[in-house]
Order: sequence, then structure tokens, then C-alpha cells
Amino acid sequence: MEMSRSGSWLSTLKRIERSVWFQGFIISIIVIAALTVGAKTYSLPYGIDKAISYLDNFITVFFLVELSLRFIACDDKKRFFKDPWNIFDTVIVIGSLMPVSETEMILVARLLRVFRVLRLVSIIPDLRFLINALLKAIPKMGYIALLMFIIFYIFAAVGSIFFHQVNEELWGDIAISMLTLFRVATFEDWTDVMYETMDVYPFSWIFYIIFIFLTAFVFLNMMVGVVLDVMTRETAQEEHENQENHHHALVTQISELQAQVARLADKIDAQQDSNKK
Amino acid sequence: MEMSRSGSWLSTLKRIERSVWFQGFIISIIVIAALTVGAKTYSLPYGIDKAISYLDNFITVFFLVELSLRFIACDDKKRFFKDPWNIFDTVIVIGSLMPVSETEMILVARLLRVFRVLRLVSIIPDLRFLINALLKAIPKMGYIALLMFIIFYIFAAVGSIFFHQVNEELWGDIAISMLTLFRVATFEDWTDVMYETMDVYPFSWIFYIIFIFLTAFVFLNMMVGVVLDVMTRETAQEEHENQENHHHALVTQISELQAQVARLADKIDAQQDSNKK
Amino acid sequence: MEMSRSGSWLSTLKRIERSVWFQGFIISIIVIAALTVGAKTYSLPYGIDKAISYLDNFITVFFLVELSLRFIACDDKKRFFKDPWNIFDTVIVIGSLMPVSETEMILVARLLRVFRVLRLVSIIPDLRFLINALLKAIPKMGYIALLMFIIFYIFAAVGSIFFHQVNEELWGDIAISMLTLFRVATFEDWTDVMYETMDVYPFSWIFYIIFIFLTAFVFLNMMVGVVLDVMTRETAQEEHENQENHHHALVTQISELQAQVARLADKIDAQQDSNKK
Amino acid sequence: MEMSRSGSWLSTLKRIERSVWFQGFIISIIVIAALTVGAKTYSLPYGIDKAISYLDNFITVFFLVELSLRFIACDDKKRFFKDPWNIFDTVIVIGSLMPVSETEMILVARLLRVFRVLRLVSIIPDLRFLINALLKAIPKMGYIALLMFIIFYIFAAVGSIFFHQVNEELWGDIAISMLTLFRVATFEDWTDVMYETMDVYPFSWIFYIIFIFLTAFVFLNMMVGVVLDVMTRETAQEEHENQENHHHALVTQISELQAQVARLADKIDAQQDSNKK
Repeated sequence: MEMSRSGSWLSTLKRIERSVWFQGFIISIIVIAALTVGAKTYSLPYGIDKAISYLDNFITVFFLVELSLRFIACDDKKRFFKDPWNIFDTVIVIGSLMPVSETEMILVARLLRVFRVLRLVSIIPDLRFLINALLKAIPKMGYIALLMFIIFYIFAAVGSIFFHQVNEELWGDIAISMLTLFRVATFEDWTDVMYETMDVYPFSWIFYIIFIFLTAFVFLNMMVGVVLDVMTRETAQEEHENQENHHHALVTQISELQAQVARLADKIDAQQDSNKK
Repeated sequence: MEMSRSGSWLSTLKRIERSVWFQGFIISIIVIAALTVGAKTYSLPYGIDKAISYLDNFITVFFLVELSLRFIACDDKKRFFKDPWNIFDTVIVIGSLMPVSETEMILVARLLRVFRVLRLVSIIPDLRFLINALLKAIPKMGYIALLMFIIFYIFAAVGSIFFHQVNEELWGDIAISMLTLFRVATFEDWTDVMYETMDVYPFSWIFYIIFIFLTAFVFLNMMVGVVLDVMTRETAQEEHENQENHHHALVTQISELQAQVARLADKIDAQQDSNKK
Repeated sequence: MEMSRSGSWLSTLKRIERSVWFQGFIISIIVIAALTVGAKTYSLPYGIDKAISYLDNFITVFFLVELSLRFIACDDKKRFFKDPWNIFDTVIVIGSLMPVSETEMILVARLLRVFRVLRLVSIIPDLRFLINALLKAIPKMGYIALLMFIIFYIFAAVGSIFFHQVNEELWGDIAISMLTLFRVATFEDWTDVMYETMDVYPFSWIFYIIFIFLTAFVFLNMMVGVVLDVMTRETAQEEHENQENHHHALVTQISELQAQVARLADKIDAQQDSNKK
Repeated sequence: MEMSRSGSWLSTLKRIERSVWFQGFIISIIVIAALTVGAKTYSLPYGIDKAISYLDNFITVFFLVELSLRFIACDDKKRFFKDPWNIFDTVIVIGSLMPVSETEMILVARLLRVFRVLRLVSIIPDLRFLINALLKAIPKMGYIALLMFIIFYIFAAVGSIFFHQVNEELWGDIAISMLTLFRVATFEDWTDVMYETMDVYPFSWIFYIIFIFLTAFVFLNMMVGVVLDVMTRETAQEEHENQENHHHALVTQISELQAQVARLADKIDAQQDSNKK
């Protein structure tokens, strides 16, 4: 009897958790949490600042309670932590529980509270779906990203070998050179970088032109790859299935017709036999 | 009889309103209105300036008359305001009726007259069609825009927490930080912003690289999404219908053939029966 | 006999004109013409400069002779000028005939000789084909270009009304404002333009953000439109024809089968009739 | 017997060469080689620098041995050098064998060792496949690249004719002008270039606007071309083959049905003949 009462209590909890109202309520709390994060970046009068701090602590406790209730309402405790979105929520909630009293940790604590805004992604199903779709597009880009990295690495090595005495700040070592090349790839004041090295090496424009063409070309192909990948996955598959269904329907129908004609042939054979008798 | 005369007057009005010549005439007036808007931004001799002001007032009156005639020519007055393009025109015409005598309001009045150029969009059917098509593409981008906003919001919060003492003008509060991040996303002198924060936080380039990759990646997927959406809507659907028609035609034809064979079987049965007798 | 000799002379001319060797020879001459154009931009010693001038004059005469021969070899003189590529060549050849003696005209004369490089486009069939394909893509973009122009015009008018006292050089009149907005649309130091007006109108960032979103969105849709247009034209049509052929083949085959079954039915009728007798 | 022992030795070699472990081992060595290339760009203490030099020499020897073994393990020595990837590896290995003792050659020697990182591309099959796919996309772009070059050449010639007295460093000769135009095409501080020439030629903005529109338009079409090319090659072909297979299957099935009906007709004929007798 004890257990059944606890069971009814659990099912009430589940009903609450899945209700649209509760979801809407949590979304509002997350939006308020996001607004407090934004508000804190302004210099506010002491009273309001204090109020926001209390609100902030309330939200931290609320999120902890909400996550705990969700965990209790879950039938299979193991499966709860198999869902990556639950782990995501747990990490964010635990992260925002960090004590804020110590002054040196205040920046980190504030940073961790910023990530509570990410709970918007885990609570809105459409956003969760979108993120899943985006994550699926990543593996296809793996090798092209590796190729891009190799191009950057080789050009950065060449750049830091030849240009490091031209400008130590841009070409000092391979890591700084890669950052400089990323800047060139985004076309950000890349001619300033080029004109500087052209004073020492007049033909260094070849280095930049080849680099820009290579990265643009590889990036273009990566883009085309992603477009094609998504297209093949979403559009063509549906169409393909449709065609397969059509084809199967036609084959079945003609097979039936063949069977019909075969029966007709048998009938004529039987007729002939009866005629002969 | 009164009514019938009024009716014939109305039908004449409608015929005028729908005539290609009248449309062309209105388009010319709008183009002239656009030119006066442009001309006013130049410093002109007093005489021409005065003439343009008279022309401007004439155009205002003309637009009012044209809209009134269109309203009168409309059979169903309620439906007139159900068409968003009519509401659009009405707002623009009423807006340009604002008095220009008061000197402090002169900028607003001039602004409202600029929007009369937008009537080109509502008068040319192809442009109206184009705008409708563009508006249809927006809802699909809703969630991806929300995701983009969350990314901007989180990075802006992090940026203003860590960098606000580096440069108050770029990272002072969350709103300014979002504007700075938009600048970074358009690659506009983003390295200047980065080098500044790297003097204080040497590893802050990670912040910018992750931000650029995230926004570029989400933007790329948004673009792919729009391409796919339009493509599926326009191209594939037509092709799909065509295939459905073909499939249906084949199924019907084979069904007829089956019926033909069935009749043949019946005929042979009947023959056998008659043979037996 | 006079005529036949002239005819054989003409056919020899035509054979020469169409030969791969002659085409290759003309292409080499055009490439040499292009190189002289490039060489003239360097400060060369007097002797070489003189030699290039003689070469230049020789090329001018050569092009005139070649075009004349092509005109003579053409059977239908009227059709010669109906081909836009022939008009293109004629204009370029006549243009480069301009006298270069007068010093004030020397820049224009040099300019006209630069355009001889364009003959590469009219002589290489693949380039001619490519240009035709590019030109076909333009009309589809007509209305979207008009819409883009309207957006630019309205924002330029608004910009020059409000910002012309901030910076006369960027927002002085509507033409300069449109150039400034084009700069903003290419993200070229657009924040400098924005920060300047934000000092006077703190909320003017809204103007820039809306403008950038609008133009980026319309541009994106224009791009998608072009992609779709080319795709529908080239890929889908071939596939569509293929499907139509398949469908037609199946319908014909099944119709033959129906006729076969119908003949079978007639045969059985005839058999039954003969049995009855 | 000598030969068979050598043969078993060869087959052992081949087995080793193709084993996943050996491939993994070589990839690790290449990654270490890449890291030494990167490490050398930092100023390191003497001891570590010395150690890296020894490691570097060891890697050089290792690569030479590995390539020799691969050559020996290859059955057909001629085919070994027909595979472009083997030539690629050989060139890189021979290149890194250059003596580093002479001080003036040290930069070139270091450069050649950087290219050893490229062996990652030749050793990882997926990267090799990717590069082959990228190379296939190039020929299709040939004519559009030629057109782009013609546009750049003509605008550079025009630019250096008119603007070379405005700024010798940007428009001095046709080569420098092309570099400046490439800068304009990447939108890199292009307004600075324009404002400078607009001081002398107030209408020179037309030159830049036309150039930007032309290059953007041609580039856009090139991009569309590549997308379409890849799409037609990869997606459509598979789908096309599938449809062809379906169509062939239907035609075959209906043909069988026709043969079946034909046999039925023969049977009825035979029956009628036997009836008549």
C-alpha cells in the first residue's frame, strides 16, 4: 500500500513533468535566468543588483529541484543518464552550484551560470532536433577538416620559416602563424600581412594567392559536400522510397496478371483434355 | 436607374483601374516620387527645390485619390482591407499625409515620404509575388535563428564578463558585446578586436575561433536548409506529381488488361459449358 | 567561269577560315596582342617600346584583314551581322583603328586596344558558349535586382536624410549614400561607418543591422534562385525526358499486349462460332 | 631455391607493408615528423633542439628505407612509378635528403622537410580518395577560370593605364594591378583603393562596381557549376541507374507476359485444328 501510494505520487509527477504548462513554466524560468545573466553585465544600482542575486540563487535551487524531480519521475534510472541531453542538463545544473563567495572564483562562477541559457536548447524539442541534425553533418566533414588542417599546418610552417624575422608577432611560431593564416583565410586585412612580407620577399604574394585559392577551393567543396549530404539524406531518400514502392506495385500487379494468364492456359488445357475424351 | 448609372460608373472605374495604361501611369508617378526623394538629398537652387515641393504635394494628393478610387471600385469593402498589400498602401499613403510645416517633424515627414518608393513593390505583380515567396522562406529559419541568437547571447555574456575591462566600448554590456560579435561574424576587423583581448588573455583567440566556426557552421546549415526548402517546394513537387500521374496511368492500363483477360477466361468457361451440353 | 573561279577562291577561303590551324593562329595573335597590352604598362627601354608599337599596328591591320576575309567568306552578308559575336568583333576591330597620334586621345586609344583581348572570348567556342549560358541566367535575376535596387534606394534616402550632417563624404547625397551602403553590404569597414553615426544617433546600429540582414537575405535567395534555375534547366530536363521516354515505352508495350489479348478473344469467338456450326 | 627463399621474403615484406599495424606505425612517424617541423619554429633550449635534429635525421632515413622496401615489395617496378602517389612520395623523400650543412641552403632544406607532412595525404586512403575527387572538379572549371583571368587582365590593363599616376604601388604595372584587383575581389579595404582614385577620377567607382559585379557573378556561376557537376556525378547517376534497372525489369516482365499470351494463342490454334480434325 505504501508502494502504491508512492506509485500514484510518481505518476502525478510524471504527468506534471510532461504537461505543456510545466514545460512553458521552465522555459520562462530559463528565459528569466538568461535575462539575469544579461542584466549583470550592466552596472546596476545596489538594490536591483542584490535582487538579481537572490533571483539567481532561487533559479539555481529551482533547476536543482526540477532536475531531481525529473530523475525521480524517471522509471529506469540507468536510462536517465544514457540520454545525452540529461547528462547535459546535469552538468549545467551542477556547474551553476559552484560557491560564489570566494572572490577569485567569481568570474568562473558567473561563466558557469551563463551556460544555464543552453538549457533552452535541451528543453525545446525543435532545437534539440536541430542540434542532432547539425551534429550528424559533422562526421562527413572529418577528412576534409583534416585536409584543411594539413594545408594550414604546412603553410604555417613555411610562413614561420621564411617570415618570422619579418614580423615576430604574426609569424613567430607555428601556432601564431596558423592564427595569421586563419585571418588571411577570412580576408581580414590580409593585404597588410602580404605587403609587409612583400617588402622582404617580393614574390611572397604567390604564397598568399596559392593559400587563398587552396582554402577557398577546399572550403567550397566542403560546403558542396554538406549540401549534397543533407540533400541525399532528406529529399532523395523519400523520393527513392516512393519510386521503390511504385515499382514494387507494378511488378506485383503484372505478376498477378501473369498468374491469371497461366490459369487461363491451364483452363484451355483442361478443355482440350475434356474435348479429347 | 440611379444605381445602374452608379454601377456603370463603377465598372468604368474598374476597367480603368485594371488597364495596363493606368498601371504604367501609376508606376511612372511612383518613379517620379522616388526621383523627388532622391533629388531632395542634393542641395538644389531655390526654384527647383520649390518646384519639387509642389510636385511632391501633387504626388501625395494623387496617391490619396488613386487609393480612394481603388477603394470605391472594390465591391467588397471588407475584403479590401483583408488584402495585406492594400493595408500596406493605405499605411504608406496616410503616412505621407503628415503635415510638414513644423520644423522639428520635417525629418520624420521626409522619412515617411521615402517609403512611398515601396509602393513600386505593391504595384508590380512580379515584385509582389517575389516578396510573398521570400516571406514564405522565413518561418523555416525560425528555430535556426533562435539557435543563432542563443549562441550570440552566450558568447556576448562570456565576452562582457571577461573582456569588459579590456575595452568598455566593445564589451561594456551584453548589447554592445552582441554588436561586437556581429562585427566578428562579418569578419570586419575582427583581428583588431582579438589582438586587443589577447594582450590581457593570451588564449582568448580560442573564444573567437570557436565563435566563428559555430556561427559559420550554423549559417551554412541555414543556407542549405533554405536551398533545400525552396528546391523541395518548387522543383521536386512538380516532378513528383508527374511521376504519380505516370504510375497511376500504368496501374489503370494494367488493370484494364486484367479485366480483359478475366473476360477472356469467362468466355472460355462459357465455351466449355456450351461444349459440354 | 569568272564566277566559278571566284567561287573556288571563296571555298578555299572558307576552308582556311574553319581550319583548326587558322583558329590556333588567330588565338596566338590575340594572346600576343594581350601581351603587348600588358607590356605597355611597364616602363620599357625606347627600342622595345618602339618594336611593340610596330607589333601593335601590325596586329591592328591583321585583325582588320581577318575580319574582312571572314566577311567575304560569309555567304549571306546580312546573316553575318545578325550574329552578335560578329558585331562584337567588328566593334572591337573598328575601335582599335582609332588614330593614336593626338596626345589627348592616347588614353582612349590605349583603352580601345585593351578590349582586343576580349576577342579571345569570341574566337574560343567554349568561352562563347559559357558567355551565352551566363547571359541566360541574367533575366531570371531581373526582378530580384530591382528589389535590391529599391532596398538600396530607400536606405540611401533614409541615410542621407539623417546622416548627411554626420559625414558629408559618406552620406552627402543619395548617390554617395548608395555607394556607402554597397560598401556596408560588402562588410568593408562597415563598423567604422556605423560607429561614426552611432556617436550622433546611438540607435543607428538598427539601421545597419536591418540593412545587412535584408540584403544578405535577398542575395541568398537570388543565389538559390540562380542555382535552382540552372539545375532545373540542365539536370532535371534530361532526367525528365528520360522518364517520359520510359513511360511511353511501357504504355506502348502494354497496349500491344492488350491488342494481343483482344486478338486472342476474337480467335476464341471464332472457334466458338465454328464449334456451333 | 634461392629464388623461392627470396620470394617468401618478398611475400613477408608485402604482408608487413599491407598490415594495418604497419600503416598505423608509418602514420605515427609522419605525425612525429610534422610535430618536429612545428617544434623547430619555436626557440628551444640547445639540448632539445639537438635531439629534434637527430630525430629528424632518423625520420629521413626511416622514410628512405620504407620507400625502398615498398619499391622492393612491388612486383611490377614499372607500375610502381605509374601510380602518381608513389612518384609523390619519392619526390618528397628525395627532397628531404638534401644536405643541410651549407648555411645558405638551410631554409630550402627546412622547407623540403615541411613537405613530408604531405605524406599523411598519400598514406591515408580516405584523404587520397578526397584529393582525387577534388582534382576531378578542376577541369570543369578550366574555361570559367580562363574567363575570370581575361576579366582580371582587361580590368588590370585599364586600371594601370588610368590609375598608375594615382598610386604607383597599387597600379604600377599590369601584374601589380591584378594583385590589387584580387584584393578588391576579396573586398579587402577595397574602398580605400576606390576613394584614392575617385579623388582624381570622380566616376572611377563605376570601374570598381562593374568589376565586383562581374567577378561575383562569374564566381557564383562557377560555384553553381561545381555543385551541379558533383551532384550530377554522384547523386543523380545512382538514381538514374536504379530507374534504368526498374524500367528494364518491367519491360522484361511484360515481354514474358506477351510470350505467355502468344503461347496461349498457339495453344488455342492447336485446339481449333484438333477440333476441326
